[in-house]
Amino acid sequence: MKKKSRFLQTPIEPFLVEPGLTADELLSRMERISFQGRNLATAYRIWQKMLADDVTIFLGMAGALSAGGLRLVVANLIATRKVDCLVSTGANLYHDLHETRGRHHYVGSAHADDAALASERVDRVYDTYASEEEFIENDEWIAEFAATLEARPYTSREFLYLLGQHLWDTTGEDGILTAAYRANVPIFCPAISDSSIGMGLSQARQKRTGTGVIDTIGDIVESANIVIRRPRTASVVLGGGTPKNFINQASVQAEFYCSDVTGHRYALQIVTDVPHFGGASGSSLEEAQSWGKLGKDSARISVQADATIALPLLASALAHVDERQLAKRRKPEFMLAGRTMSIDGQAVSNERFVEEVNESAV
Amino acid sequence: MKKKSRFLQTPIEPFLVEPGLTADELLSRMERISFQGRNLATAYRIWQKMLADDVTIFLGMAGALSAGGLRLVVANLIATRKVDCLVSTGANLYHDLHETRGRHHYVGSAHADDAALASERVDRVYDTYASEEEFIENDEWIAEFAATLEARPYTSREFLYLLGQHLWDTTGEDGILTAAYRANVPIFCPAISDSSIGMGLSQARQKRTGTGVIDTIGDIVESANIVIRRPRTASVVLGGGTPKNFINQASVQAEFYCSDVTGHRYALQIVTDVPHFGGASGSSLEEAQSWGKLGKDSARISVQADATIALPLLASALAHVDERQLAKRRKPEFMLAGRTMSIDGQAVSNERFVEEVNESAV
Amino acid sequence: MKKKSRFLQTPIEPFLVEPGLTADELLSRMERISFQGRNLATAYRIWQKMLADDVTIFLGMAGALSAGGLRLVVANLIATRKVDCLVSTGANLYHDLHETRGRHHYVGSAHADDAALASERVDRVYDTYASEEEFIENDEWIAEFAATLEARPYTSREFLYLLGQHLWDTTGEDGILTAAYRANVPIFCPAISDSSIGMGLSQARQKRTGTGVIDTIGDIVESANIVIRRPRTASVVLGGGTPKNFINQASVQAEFYCSDVTGHRYALQIVTDVPHFGGASGSSLEEAQSWGKLGKDSARISVQADATIALPLLASALAHVDERQLAKRRKPEFMLAGRTMSIDGQAVSNERFVEEVNESAV
Amino acid sequence: MKKKSRFLQTPIEPFLVEPGLTADELLSRMERISFQGRNLATAYRIWQKMLADDVTIFLGMAGALSAGGLRLVVANLIATRKVDCLVSTGANLYHDLHETRGRHHYVGSAHADDAALASERVDRVYDTYASEEEFIENDEWIAEFAATLEARPYTSREFLYLLGQHLWDTTGEDGILTAAYRANVPIFCPAISDSSIGMGLSQARQKRTGTGVIDTIGDIVESANIVIRRPRTASVVLGGGTPKNFINQASVQAEFYCSDVTGHRYALQIVTDVPHFGGASGSSLEEAQSWGKLGKDSARISVQADATIALPLLASALAHVDERQLAKRRKPEFMLAGRTMSIDGQAVSNERFVEEVNESAV
Repeated sequence: MKKKSRFLQTPIEPFLVEPGLTADELLSRMERISFQGRNLATAYRIWQKMLADDVTIFLGMAGALSAGGLRLVVANLIATRKVDCLVSTGANLYHDLHETRGRHHYVGSAHADDAALASERVDRVYDTYASEEEFIENDEWIAEFAATLEARPYTSREFLYLLGQHLWDTTGEDGILTAAYRANVPIFCPAISDSSIGMGLSQARQKRTGTGVIDTIGDIVESANIVIRRPRTASVVLGGGTPKNFINQASVQAEFYCSDVTGHRYALQIVTDVPHFGGASGSSLEEAQSWGKLGKDSARISVQADATIALPLLASALAHVDERQLAKRRKPEFMLAGRTMSIDGQAVSNERFVEEVNESAV
Repeated sequence: MKKKSRFLQTPIEPFLVEPGLTADELLSRMERISFQGRNLATAYRIWQKMLADDVTIFLGMAGALSAGGLRLVVANLIATRKVDCLVSTGANLYHDLHETRGRHHYVGSAHADDAALASERVDRVYDTYASEEEFIENDEWIAEFAATLEARPYTSREFLYLLGQHLWDTTGEDGILTAAYRANVPIFCPAISDSSIGMGLSQARQKRTGTGVIDTIGDIVESANIVIRRPRTASVVLGGGTPKNFINQASVQAEFYCSDVTGHRYALQIVTDVPHFGGASGSSLEEAQSWGKLGKDSARISVQADATIALPLLASALAHVDERQLAKRRKPEFMLAGRTMSIDGQAVSNERFVEEVNESAV
Repeated sequence: MKKKSRFLQTPIEPFLVEPGLTADELLSRMERISFQGRNLATAYRIWQKMLADDVTIFLGMAGALSAGGLRLVVANLIATRKVDCLVSTGANLYHDLHETRGRHHYVGSAHADDAALASERVDRVYDTYASEEEFIENDEWIAEFAATLEARPYTSREFLYLLGQHLWDTTGEDGILTAAYRANVPIFCPAISDSSIGMGLSQARQKRTGTGVIDTIGDIVESANIVIRRPRTASVVLGGGTPKNFINQASVQAEFYCSDVTGHRYALQIVTDVPHFGGASGSSLEEAQSWGKLGKDSARISVQADATIALPLLASALAHVDERQLAKRRKPEFMLAGRTMSIDGQAVSNERFVEEVNESAV
Repeated sequence: MKKKSRFLQTPIEPFLVEPGLTADELLSRMERISFQGRNLATAYRIWQKMLADDVTIFLGMAGALSAGGLRLVVANLIATRKVDCLVSTGANLYHDLHETRGRHHYVGSAHADDAALASERVDRVYDTYASEEEFIENDEWIAEFAATLEARPYTSREFLYLLGQHLWDTTGEDGILTAAYRANVPIFCPAISDSSIGMGLSQARQKRTGTGVIDTIGDIVESANIVIRRPRTASVVLGGGTPKNFINQASVQAEFYCSDVTGHRYALQIVTDVPHFGGASGSSLEEAQSWGKLGKDSARISVQADATIALPLLASALAHVDERQLAKRRKPEFMLAGRTMSIDGQAVSNERFVEEVNESAV
């Protein structure tokens, strides 16, 4: 009998339907099918590996995930420390705040009459609605809170920590901001000025001069210093956008000051954008390797799927990860109160990149 | 307190992660989130309604679903009669036959060196490989079988029934073709000449003159007559392509001869194509309504997702549908042996459209 | 000074805006930009090379190009013999016939009220409308014509030649079918049963028994024999679908019987589908190489763009190709009247693959 | 004769190929075809209307347009004042600066070996390469420049004006930053901390404490005040991302303080993202209407196309717009030097929203 080609070694195993399959069983049965189904199963396996390894897991989120019903999935990932640091668009944090404050988004139609919606002051996000008046009231709430803070620059990380604290103190409700506050998980929002949180901050200035100042360049320093302090990292990206690049940039910027940094050890992205138009959101993880954003032997997978399908399945499967295993994770410990945060007891400046790491490590 | 806008009635319910969630629980929790997650949950609900109603369910499949590990999902839908009539590309039937005959597709890489694959005669379907020699041997097997048949035209439906029978007789293995044969579910393949099954048929002519003849126009007559005989229909489409249009065409063509036909009562599609380039694969179900392909009050949903993610989840959830309920389904009963098939005991011609239906219905 | 990396040799040349740039100047200035703009410029260059080489150029067209205003672009490519053989979906030929017969498609809206359209019997193709009654009258016209033909099987190629002839005789109008008839360019329609032309053919049976029979498997034999007779080929694909695969299949099937056939020398596709869901429409030309559909050193380019933008630009640029150069082209000469067509004076059977080519070539 | 449906009034006019067609003739012939071709022709018509009307034209650019060879197209639109205010990602400005400083991006391959690229320190953007060392040298150049500035917060607008000035003074070369500097066109970069310009700024801190501070919330105030000062606006968006939302946000935020603001009068977007995943980049202009981002009777068009194909064609056609007509445009006159910019002689604060407009207008 003829020898099989070296390329023909692992047979596809057709998915077998059965009643009662749980999320992790579903994904296990998808490991040897093809296309994006296989990729999602691989993403599950890689995330499990991250959790078993000693890495700081960054989660980037873009797209209307909070308005779209996934905020408690992200909150769950934070609370169970399946992620260590969140980088988000402002909109996702804002829509999270909206619901944490007891408001809602609403089931709507993608084929709405937008003139009719506008006349009732209803804002549409594809098939989902929200009240413009409630949004305006949120902006005001944020502005009032921001105006109470000492008039000085804040990194988005510091401001969002304070916002999460205030939100928890006033509502006691679960959400992304409150979960991150309680779990001491830092949140960065590099494009905060392109969001309603930014709008709230800008309105704080109207209330009290000198308030509402975000030191967005400080975020770069701080995020890179997190990587310098703990060079082994992983990147999980939902939807591309500024969070995807910001996470990679932290690694690249850190490497500039610290040769121990050699790119993410693990990279996983769930995106709907495609590479062939050249935009960063859809760029491949292979491309990221050319920039040194990913380590040479990094495990990586790109899943082309809407997060509203992929993430509920993936996070539900991850809920099967043993709690004792999670407890054993050597995860980074952050202290987020105050102007200068710390990681594992070491200060993380937002004013200067750490250059003395090797000495301090001695 | 101010009255809520009529547009703000049903709150989004954020997905709650929990260990042990089964496929149908996952989809139930996705009913009130947004975007494609909600659409997939709606697809599940609509399919359940189809099963509870008295409709002939057409399933169209395009894209490399069989090579990609979903052939036993489709076989399961056929065997449990969650679909009544299959319309498929030739490739999906061919790749099914390949595995039913004991060959495999293989886990490969989307970043392969295609010149290296070509030199080892390995064919690539995105991230999945197959042996060209085994494919050639399949073609030959099909050609030999086709050459044994009486030299006359066959509708694709009749030929595929005979092929399924032969496959079952020689292998006794599960698959799409064998499941359809055993469950008396007709299969149409409108673009059979654009596939390796067609190639096998063309090679039959080399063996024996006059064989390998498919009466593809007869398929139009036959499929329309199925609808005329039983005008209440539903359409489930995976991936667009010729099956999508063929199923709609059966309805439109039937309506031409029988005013009882008024378009599908239910329509569900899982596609990755988009509407805005004008192609049929990505066309919306709203557009289908303008053509009369869908009934006025039809329940319909379009899910933008890769079937390799959406279908395992959806079919696993459908496995929860009660067997007693399925048993009560008033599904069409087909007799597929011979040149002229029948539905519920009534002949279904492939030579003439039925025009006397009202009389015969009396 | 440090040596430049071997990867950094050809600088991007930013596109320079100027008034009065013609289509070919536009594309020339896009040669050294990036992404799909560069790819379109490369497609232009490759098409020019095809025309200068001695190859049979196949053109595949899928998607609603005819309804969408591109039928006279395709007719122009045929009339100027920038393509030698057309493979099309039925819809594109049908919508071409519709306009050649003096009817129209109409500028509409993608945001139409489809129920209102349905009630006025207006059919929508994304942002384009047509009259259902006129369509029904077309079907009838096709059926009447088909019913006048001798009651025997026809390859789609033979039938479409006769249809083009009849259309030209009765209208004298320009279009795809009439241009192909007049230029002796064969047209194949592998999925003819999935189109309104197929519906017209099926209705011919109602008028006269035994008419409306298409030998779709004969199309496979005929198209492969065209390649066997003249093994140097090029493939231009607009929109994927069955034409894309059928053109490749002709090459693969031909190679089975004739070792001189080694895949297309040139391949160019303008598609909107993507590779990562595994479907054939979006599959890459690299993947095609693994199947032997493309020659080892073939020039190839894939352009991700809507043909309604890319094709007017590309075909207008190609209008600059010198007529004397076109006149010198050693293009294949087809005789299409009758059951058996010929190429360069050699018969092209639809009943048997040519196996004696080397002898006959002596 | 039967009356035509009201929906069937304007026939599709098939595109006619001819040698010598210029960009504006191409687009004129695409006005009555379908799909994205028609949309691009409509975009051309709408942009012409904007230029004839009295509106402030915002241009948003995301995606790797500068690296991809379109920076001089954008520079041309700025220099000829077909746009009045630019909102950009940092990457586009950075890659512009790179080339203005005499470096290059390079023609590369999308199928590169990224490990090999990484080992030669070549960074890949899809099919385009650049030297990592040159990038690092840019960062340093930006850092040095930023460190020379007075240590105080700058809006991104003020900093980018100074950067453009410095770039012009040191190079005298054409580009986006230098064209904007010379034409007094403000540039906002809301996500500056997510870019290499941000990285350069962060490195300035290492050189001199207190430098490299961007007041990103000040950008919100400033951009909204521009709209308050001159409420008639138009939005042109290339590629979605933060610029798209930031332009809309300026309008929404302005409306909060000034009831004369009622959304953009014109909106035109060229995007590759799609609406159905809920993200802002792909969101439809209809959806924008529900938020009040667009005026009730605004002219609007969305083109689904890669900007590297659409923009060269569109900008070349716009080069035909009569210079005398452009000269007559009542365009906004900006003064950008200094901490507080002005529009038409009126101060535009970045510290407080203008609330006294009606009075000042008296």
